[in-house]
Amino acid sequence: MARSTARVSRRDPGTDEPVRQRLLGEATRLFAERGFERTSVQEIVAAVGVTKGAMYHYFDSKDDLLKEIYGRVLRLQMERLTMFADAEGPVAERLHAAAMDVVITSVENLDDTKIFFLSMHQLAPEVQKTVRAERRRYHERFRDLVIEGQRTGVFSDAVPAEMVVDFFFGSVHHLGTWYNPDGPLSGAEVGRHFADLLLASLRP
Amino acid sequence: MARSTARVSRRDPGTDEPVRQRLLGEATRLFAERGFERTSVQEIVAAVGVTKGAMYHYFDSKDDLLKEIYGRVLRLQMERLTMFADAEGPVAERLHAAAMDVVITSVENLDDTKIFFLSMHQLAPEVQKTVRAERRRYHERFRDLVIEGQRTGVFSDAVPAEMVVDFFFGSVHHLGTWYNPDGPLSGAEVGRHFADLLLASLRP
Repeated sequence: MARSTARVSRRDPGTDEPVRQRLLGEATRLFAERGFERTSVQEIVAAVGVTKGAMYHYFDSKDDLLKEIYGRVLRLQMERLTMFADAEGPVAERLHAAAMDVVITSVENLDDTKIFFLSMHQLAPEVQKTVRAERRRYHERFRDLVIEGQRTGVFSDAVPAEMVVDFFFGSVHHLGTWYNPDGPLSGAEVGRHFADLLLASLRP
Repeated sequence: MARSTARVSRRDPGTDEPVRQRLLGEATRLFAERGFERTSVQEIVAAVGVTKGAMYHYFDSKDDLLKEIYGRVLRLQMERLTMFADAEGPVAERLHAAAMDVVITSVENLDDTKIFFLSMHQLAPEVQKTVRAERRRYHERFRDLVIEGQRTGVFSDAVPAEMVVDFFFGSVHHLGTWYNPDGPLSGAEVGRHFADLLLASLRP
């Protein structure tokens, strides 16, 4: 039952990644449609066409599903931030690229982040703590870029780096409440505007 | 009974404003504690010590309570924005004062705005529409200040005013997720930092 048919490796019936992905996909869709609290595990497994047992093979609980929906976006963003932050080049360019990119990936995964911010308070306190810790590491890496620029005089230090990061990520995390994927602006355009505003606010 | 006599006229025992205020206060507390959906009208009236009939005298429904919790903050903010926007003085100073003030009033009413952003999607579509329209008017007045500065060359117009407003209010609306009233920063300090960043991002 943990087996799935996986289109990537049809010859290996033991691969189970697709069921896991489908569970995450249907859970995201259902949480977005009717809310985390109003969605039952039974509805999720019915939508995927597997048993509850199959779901519990991958996820401990509905909480665990929600945590993973946001967790996979956060891991992707951390990976990309590390790539931009550790690249060659002036810190202003690296920060601009990282800022623009996090808007793009947030917009590409808008349902996931939206659901998460609407439902996080319903998670068990220890799960919230884990996720907050992961996100804090992300913010700290981003903040280090701001500090690097402030130390070298490329950025103004009139506002503490921590506050700059809270300010910027408030805007990023709030995208889910107003950004419309069918509207006139692409994620890249919004990302460029946001990154431009961030960099402009840091000019000495 | 629909007459309001407020605390300014102690001689009228029929005054009903306090019941209305207490209903809003207890509803805010309960929604914050256990969530909008998990709070019943019965629990709210029990907390205030009135009958359901008394509540329905002031509010049509639980939705109506939630709408009013946010509505009163929004009206207060609109009033204050109008005051700052219509004042004498350079547009940069007026925008800075307005930006700082909206952070302060958001922090002073943190539960109200937090509950609202977590629960708005649970309101009936037409109620959501009304509230969004009210908030849009607020944003438009704020945006007009940015446009005024851009037209007169005081602010850069590299980023459209609309986007500047979405960027700034993302941060303001997101305060409820991280700001801690018992932490080291006052609302005025956060407000000053946010307003400084906004103004810095608009320098030509």
